[in-house]
Parts: sequence; structure tokens; C-alpha cells
Amino acid sequence: MRNILIIGAGKSTSHLLQFLMEKTEVEKLHITVGDIDPSHAQKLLKDHPQSTAIKLDIFNEEERQNAIKKADLVISMLPARFHIEVAKDCLKFDKNMVTASYVSPQMEALNDEVKKKNLIFLNEIGVDPGVDHMSAMKVIDQIREQGGKMVLFESFCGGLVAPENDTNLWNYKFTWNPRNVVVAGQGGTAKFIQEGKYKYIPYHKLFRRTEFLEIEGYGKFEAYANRDSLKYRSAYGLDDVLTLYRGTIRRLGFSKAWNMFVQLGMTDDTYVLEDSENMSYRDFVNAFLPYSPTDSVELKLRHYLKIDQDDIMWEKLTELDLFNLYKKLGIKNATPAQALQKILEDQWLLKEDEKDMIVMYHKFGYILNGEERQIDSSMVALGQDKTYTAMSKTVGLPLGIAALKILNKEITATGVVIPILKDIYEPVLKELEKQGIKFIEKEVAYQGYNPDNVAG
Amino acid sequence: MRNILIIGAGKSTSHLLQFLMEKTEVEKLHITVGDIDPSHAQKLLKDHPQSTAIKLDIFNEEERQNAIKKADLVISMLPARFHIEVAKDCLKFDKNMVTASYVSPQMEALNDEVKKKNLIFLNEIGVDPGVDHMSAMKVIDQIREQGGKMVLFESFCGGLVAPENDTNLWNYKFTWNPRNVVVAGQGGTAKFIQEGKYKYIPYHKLFRRTEFLEIEGYGKFEAYANRDSLKYRSAYGLDDVLTLYRGTIRRLGFSKAWNMFVQLGMTDDTYVLEDSENMSYRDFVNAFLPYSPTDSVELKLRHYLKIDQDDIMWEKLTELDLFNLYKKLGIKNATPAQALQKILEDQWLLKEDEKDMIVMYHKFGYILNGEERQIDSSMVALGQDKTYTAMSKTVGLPLGIAALKILNKEITATGVVIPILKDIYEPVLKELEKQGIKFIEKEVAYQGYNPDNVAG
Repeated sequence: MRNILIIGAGKSTSHLLQFLMEKTEVEKLHITVGDIDPSHAQKLLKDHPQSTAIKLDIFNEEERQNAIKKADLVISMLPARFHIEVAKDCLKFDKNMVTASYVSPQMEALNDEVKKKNLIFLNEIGVDPGVDHMSAMKVIDQIREQGGKMVLFESFCGGLVAPENDTNLWNYKFTWNPRNVVVAGQGGTAKFIQEGKYKYIPYHKLFRRTEFLEIEGYGKFEAYANRDSLKYRSAYGLDDVLTLYRGTIRRLGFSKAWNMFVQLGMTDDTYVLEDSENMSYRDFVNAFLPYSPTDSVELKLRHYLKIDQDDIMWEKLTELDLFNLYKKLGIKNATPAQALQKILEDQWLLKEDEKDMIVMYHKFGYILNGEERQIDSSMVALGQDKTYTAMSKTVGLPLGIAALKILNKEITATGVVIPILKDIYEPVLKELEKQGIKFIEKEVAYQGYNPDNVAG
Repeated sequence: MRNILIIGAGKSTSHLLQFLMEKTEVEKLHITVGDIDPSHAQKLLKDHPQSTAIKLDIFNEEERQNAIKKADLVISMLPARFHIEVAKDCLKFDKNMVTASYVSPQMEALNDEVKKKNLIFLNEIGVDPGVDHMSAMKVIDQIREQGGKMVLFESFCGGLVAPENDTNLWNYKFTWNPRNVVVAGQGGTAKFIQEGKYKYIPYHKLFRRTEFLEIEGYGKFEAYANRDSLKYRSAYGLDDVLTLYRGTIRRLGFSKAWNMFVQLGMTDDTYVLEDSENMSYRDFVNAFLPYSPTDSVELKLRHYLKIDQDDIMWEKLTELDLFNLYKKLGIKNATPAQALQKILEDQWLLKEDEKDMIVMYHKFGYILNGEERQIDSSMVALGQDKTYTAMSKTVGLPLGIAALKILNKEITATGVVIPILKDIYEPVLKELEKQGIKFIEKEVAYQGYNPDNVAG
């Protein structure tokens, strides 16, 4: 019997637990889920005989270490900043560890010790980061094995609402942490490379510089640039590619509409609004518009943002009840971003039976035998409901699969790693396919960054 | 004989020294100027018999304390962050101190000790802050003495080029620290009150929300909002006014043109451009524009910023030689803001015989006997040349005048203070008038914030 300890039972544990529960017989597993409030885990575990839900306060060293000591492998589903305490204990008690989070500098610093003990701390094995690394490196390695030379890599990912529940004018609902959506793109200029030129987009222009893509059967999408397009340049071995771009996928028109909030200043999270608690939604809008003794908030906003009378942008705003004189923010010392989040949550929260969707798209440009070529690779995952989401599936399955492969010594890498090694991504992607998470790769004509390569 | 020690002989010391040199006989003064490089001071002192220029390294405690010990009063012209060391020595050796800088929290913390020793550390007695405090409080106190109740206070100030040297399309030249101009408005949202409503302007909209003003004989000006409009609300006793606004004055059209740089992202000072040293001016512009294999940087920029073929904005850009393919930035690890400063300095530096201009404008709205009234107060100061600037005059004279009034015990306040007390501003303003720095106050019809108070 092998013990897997899962610490933290948040939104993305549903599929992970389901996957592991199905494997307890064949893999001889016992699943322990530790959380400060084990009731959510209990519900998900459905009295499965090979499972235990325990109360676990990760700030209580004794509780934490007792649980870790008994495990054969630990999956940390905690918020990223708390992984390090778990990691130190895993090191102390010789346990392998798996997370879906970015490698922090503190985590990275453990690499030598982890290696020395022949352990693996596998991070960034959720969806993004995770599935993106694996599906990209698979194609990049294939291209290289054929003797191809990479010249372009563009990668896009987005969490959206499934087409059948895509019922508002924004074609968007919150399928994950709403706060991350509201402050997305802030904290630095987006930087990427196109055809050898470094490009910089300031935040206030980010949502007007979208790229477009199409996925068969799902129609058109747009994407805005991530801040970190160059982050994995060296890790992927792409130091000399001409185009390197990472973006976040939305449905067409979302970004241009979102830009209205950016322009007004409503996404700012750096200061507190005066008397925010008693502000109406209308007051909130008006705080960003010039004073007038006579003109309406509506007309001031139309004029300020140049919204024509017949522009759909306007309906996108009124759909949010943004000009309501009576609805109050009701939040003390709210930043504009917190206020906006409140207003959006009125409309954009997923209902119990609504489904989400994860979309991922990569473009690989390369030169083979002097010829420019391109492979596009895409994946769409659909959720079942608000609990068994596509997000939870694409985060949880890679975690669960990798955990088993480590237990079964099919993955033998050591150290603090991410899944860009063939030994890791190959078996995990194979199992993901069996579970319905499958990339469609196709050769297309090489387009370079700019498909309309014509002077005129 | 009284010894005045001036520490730091930067740009704004010329008029201060000239004023004090004229007073040495009548006031029985000896002037000592200490600077790390005393040559500039020597030039300004022109072998005046009652003066000494000494080498003074303010980081050398012994040098610093020796100089301060010998003085009867110290004027610190150092960059603001260095005042505190001088202040601590002044406290130690019982010396009064005068500066033109904002009161830092560390300076404020000395208040009790300074008071206890019956000393005065008079700060913010340059032009802005300084002349603005004094000229505003004079009118506010007058209004209150008559029984009026303040309802509106707007205050504008700007350092510009004098009309006779106003020769470029921007109607602007650097008359002070160029860096402050390039990064102006950054680091926080502008916040003010108009007719009882708090208003917030994000940086990327700041230069499109200008207010307008006119000064007889000098024509029209515009102003963009300062970040700190509410800073002196309590100090001025204006906690319940309906409108409180502070702004920076420019010539008409400057802000809308400056906004082009803001929109592109060229004023950003938070990251470093890749290979900035070898970037041409044209490369710099192109880094903020979408990639194209064929379109020119010019057309991409016109399209991005929506600059029509006949729009004067375009000539404002070409005047700066912004599209030059051969001129290199030549600065290692430059931020966009540093790169932009370099390009602007090619064109906007004041020549030896060119003159600057300081403009200040206040509006005071109040209610007297149930009637709405308004007083406007304005001041224009013109420089003589690049050394004897209006900036140096309006900063240096208040400093020098206040220093003498303290020595002569005409100013008797104690503690860490700013010149909002009648005992300070009255004698200083009187002397400033004699020196040609004079406010024109006139009663005008009350306009409130919005002069076009009509429904439509």
C-alpha cells in the first residue's frame, strides 16, 4: 500500500481525487487529504474506502510533519507561497513532492539537496504551467530530432466558459480566481520578440494589441500578450528564435471591451477609494469621469471613451448594471480593482450546472532542409459542471498521473524540476490522451509572425 | 557679523547669493558656500569681500559639523534626501535652518526637539512649494478675516520658457531637471475634489484631462492635475471645501502631445530596454509599435496613435528627429524614460542667453454674506538668462529673505514649519514684491468648478 498525501483541497482537487480514487485498487493506493477544513474533501472523497480526510493546519509544524512522515509522496495544492514549508519537510523525511505552481526562488534553492537525496520535486505540472510545457516540448523535440531548427514559438492558453453556457455579451465568465482576471497584465510591461525585434506593450495598450487564432469546431479567439513571454526561452532551448510570444486567450471582442475598464482606471489595485462602502455602482463609474453639474454619467462616459450611439461596447457596460444608482459596493476601503470585481461577480460567476472550457494553442515555426515549415497544436477541454471543471481536470490529471509515475518509478528524474524533460512529458501526455486531454497537431503553411507578408 | 552657511551650490543658488551679497553691508553678513565642488560657487560670488567658498563633503561628518558650528544660520540647497543630516547637526549646535524642500517624515519627527530649543527649521520656502503656500494663505486668511467661507481652491504652477524664446512646436523647453518632466505624474493616481466629488485620473489619462486658464498679457495656458491635490487640505484649513485641485501649467497643446509618449510607453522608468546603447531613435520608437515586415515606422505610429495626415501632432514628433535611423541613444541599460529624456534634451535644453518663465495662478471661491465670490491671483516671473533664471529667483529670494528675517528675529515661529503662518508669509511676500515678484489679485464672478453651469 502506497500513501499519497494531498495537502489543500481547493477548487482544482475534484478531478485529481476522482482520478486517484479510480486507481486505488490497481495501484494499491491510500489517499489522505489534509485541509484546514476537511469537509470539502470529505464530500469529494464520497466515503471511498481507501481514503481519509484529515484536518491539517499547515502552520502547525507537528501536524504537518506527522502527516508528511506517513506519506510516500506529497501533492501540495496549497497557494504557491506555502509550498516551501511542505518542501522543507519533504526533504527532511525523504518524500517526493508534486505541485502545479511556478518554481519559486526558495524552491529552486533546494535543487542540490533534493538531487543529493535522489528525490524529485516536480513543479509546474498543472495546465498552465504544466500541460503547456509538455505539449510544447513534445513538438519542439520532434522538430529537433528531425533536424529542424526552431525560428518561431507562440503559445496561447485561456480559461473560458463553454460554448453552451456562453450567454453574456462579454462571452466570458469567471471560471477561476476572479481577482487574477481583474488585475491581469498589471505590474510590468509586456515584452516579447517578433521576427527578431523586441517589442514592449504598456498595460494601458495591452488589450488593444491582441492577436487572433481559430480552432476548428470552436471558431475564432483572440489573445493578449503575457508579461513573461521570454520566461522559458532558455529552458526550451529557444535562445535564438526570431519570434517568441505567449498570450492569454479570450473570445473575440473581450479585450477591446475590457480596455474600457483599463482606460477609466477601474482595474487599479494600488489605492483605496474614498468611502467605497457607500458608493453606488454609478458613483464608482462617476469617480473616473470629469465633473459636470448637468451632464449624465452615461453621456460623460460615452464621450470620454468615444462610444458611438450604436456601438455594442455600450450594451456590454449596461449588461453589468454599471450605472445603477442604488446598488452599493458595500466593501470598506476597496481599491478600484476590488470594486470592479464585485460588480463583475454579480454577472459572471459560473452557475452550479454551467461548464467551463480550457483552450490551448501553440504555433511552431521551423526550418527543415532549408524549407520554412509550421506545426500548429491545439487542445480544448470542456468541464462537466461547476465542480468538475475543465480547469480542475487539466490541472488535476497531470498532477495525479505524474504522482503515480513517480511512485512507480516510471519517472526517474531527480531535483527540483519542471516537465520539459522527455522522460516526464512523454508518459504523462500518453496517459492524458487516454483521459481525453488530447492535442491536435497539424502541419500548416509557414506564416512567420506576419501572415500578410506583402508590401503595398 | 552674522554667518550664513549655504550648503550645496546648484542651479537655484544664483539669485540667492546675489540677494545676500547685496545685503552684506547693511545686514552685516558673511556668506559661506560649501559644496563638494566650490568652483561654481566661486564664480557666482565674484570675489565678494564678505564671502567664502569652501569645499564641503556633506558625507564627511567632521567637515560638515565644523562648517555648521561656525554659522549663525544654515540654508540647505542639497537634494531633499540629504537635508536630514544637516538638520541633526543644526539641532546639535543650536542653529536655525532653511530649505526649499518638502518636509520629510524624518524632518517632521524633529519638530518637538526643535521647538524645545526655540529653533526654527523653515522648509518649503522656495517657489513650489513656497511662494504658492504664501500667496495662497494670504488670500485665504483675508477672506476668513472678512467672514468669508472658502468653498473652492485651485492652484496652478509651471516652469516654462519665456515667450521671446518660445521657439519650438511644443512651446516648451527644459528649465529645470529634465528627468522630473519626463516622469511627471507617475507613481500614483491623481486624486482631487470637484464640487464635493472625489475624482481619480490614472496616469494614462492624465494628460488628456487638462484644465485651462488665461493670464492677462501672457495668453492661455493649460494644466494637468498633480497627484497631491489634497496634500495641504488640513494645513490650509480647507477640510470642507467642495473643490480642491492642484495642477502643473503648460502652454496650450503640450499635454495632448506629451500624451503620445505616454500612450506609446516611452515615459516608463521601471524596466530596461534590450541593447539600448545601440538603439537608434527610430529603433526606440519601433520597439513600442507592432511588428510589420513592410510598413514604415512612421505609418505604424500614425495609425497606432490615430494621427491624421494634417495633424500638427505629427510635426511635433518630427521636430524631435524621432525617426532618425542613425542617431543612437548611446546609453547602456536605459529605461524608456531615460531614452526619451536623451532625445528631448537634443532639442529642449535652454541656450546660454535664453530665458525661462515661472507662472503661478490661484482661484479662491468663497461665500460672503450668502453671496458666492471669487478672487483670482496670478504671478509671472521672467528669467534673465540661463544662470539667472526665474526659477532660481523665485526659489532663491524667498529663501534669502526668510533667512534674514529669522536672523533679525522678525520671524519668531519655532519648530519644523512651512510658510503658511501669517508671521512668516506677510514679511516675506512684502520683500518679494520689492524684488519684483508680485501677485495680481482680482475679484472675478464666481464660476464654481464648472463655468458652463447649464443643462442642455
